[in-house]
Amino acid sequence: MNKIITIGREFGSGGREFGRKLAELLQAAYYDREIIAEIAKRTALSEEYVQKIMERRPIAAFPIHIGRSFSFYPVINPVWDQGQAIYQEQHKIIQEMAQKSDCVIVGRCADYILRELKPLRIFVYSDMESKIARCRANINLDDKDAQAMSDKELKQHIIDINKNRAKYYEFYTGQDWGDKSNYDICVNTTRVSIESAAKAVINLLN
Amino acid sequence: MNKIITIGREFGSGGREFGRKLAELLQAAYYDREIIAEIAKRTALSEEYVQKIMERRPIAAFPIHIGRSFSFYPVINPVWDQGQAIYQEQHKIIQEMAQKSDCVIVGRCADYILRELKPLRIFVYSDMESKIARCRANINLDDKDAQAMSDKELKQHIIDINKNRAKYYEFYTGQDWGDKSNYDICVNTTRVSIESAAKAVINLLN
Repeated sequence: MNKIITIGREFGSGGREFGRKLAELLQAAYYDREIIAEIAKRTALSEEYVQKIMERRPIAAFPIHIGRSFSFYPVINPVWDQGQAIYQEQHKIIQEMAQKSDCVIVGRCADYILRELKPLRIFVYSDMESKIARCRANINLDDKDAQAMSDKELKQHIIDINKNRAKYYEFYTGQDWGDKSNYDICVNTTRVSIESAAKAVINLLN
Repeated sequence: MNKIITIGREFGSGGREFGRKLAELLQAAYYDREIIAEIAKRTALSEEYVQKIMERRPIAAFPIHIGRSFSFYPVINPVWDQGQAIYQEQHKIIQEMAQKSDCVIVGRCADYILRELKPLRIFVYSDMESKIARCRANINLDDKDAQAMSDKELKQHIIDINKNRAKYYEFYTGQDWGDKSNYDICVNTTRVSIESAAKAVINLLN
């Protein structure tokens, strides 16, 4: 059976770098934005649009007042439907990827989608100060908006993205994002280096 | 500087076994019940009594009704004082141990007590089914009470011990026990073997 590692990660904690390092050490396939590209190809939507839908909090059923009673209805609107369609496509793609070869899959509820294959489930996190420093170090020079953010703005930006990740995960899995009971190993990258953490995790697969 | 590893652990998750394995691989000192023995020696209390005090939930300040007003008073009683005295002795002993040599310290708020030395802080946990199975496998043949427990009773026993550990930790550190932000690595021993997890963690120290 293929070795499969899934990585949940807080934005700013270096989860992507950690995943890449792991894939390199394992000589395994690495899937992250590749999943978005593949969804875009299959749905004929643009990558940017797919990304936007996936980063938005899913719109859940909410109460609608009808006559004198309150009922719970799913919101019937095109964006909601598209969110569902994208999730279903993602589900299919992740399962195909896991069948193909050893792989590291970052985000996208992969731990839940592949739960029957019992992947090694990792969650990567860090404290806020470390997240801000990592974001500052990684801000693309072309990204004028992010470059111009104050620490306070950047902190709020990080909090918002992580809240959306949590909502997305909880909506599609019914589990708490980042709750350690859903993972085999949780790595705090505040003090532990990503390189040594990746080398450590390799030992769990042998 | 000495290599110091502290291990917080849910009862039944194999934290002690994990700590022993780590100490063996590191050729480091291992401290667990040794701390109780040392406290007993220094305080002239019996080991059993020290253990009992440490496993009991600490008695915190609580409201006492006096006249028409409510005030907050610490409970002034000998057991409370003894709890404090034992904690202070423990504090001293753990700091001495950390100065002596490389070491692995299990439980006893060591992560908090030694925070200025920046130890590698590990938390070991597992799901309830796995805890019950591990407890059954480790029940001492002489321990007739535990042997006779039904799964339901054993589950409640595990829950109670872990609740007390959480209260003890929170009382003395002001932090949430088992909250991943207080640890560098959290290891779920439900699926990951203790041997491979210990080998993995060694990599974080090099």
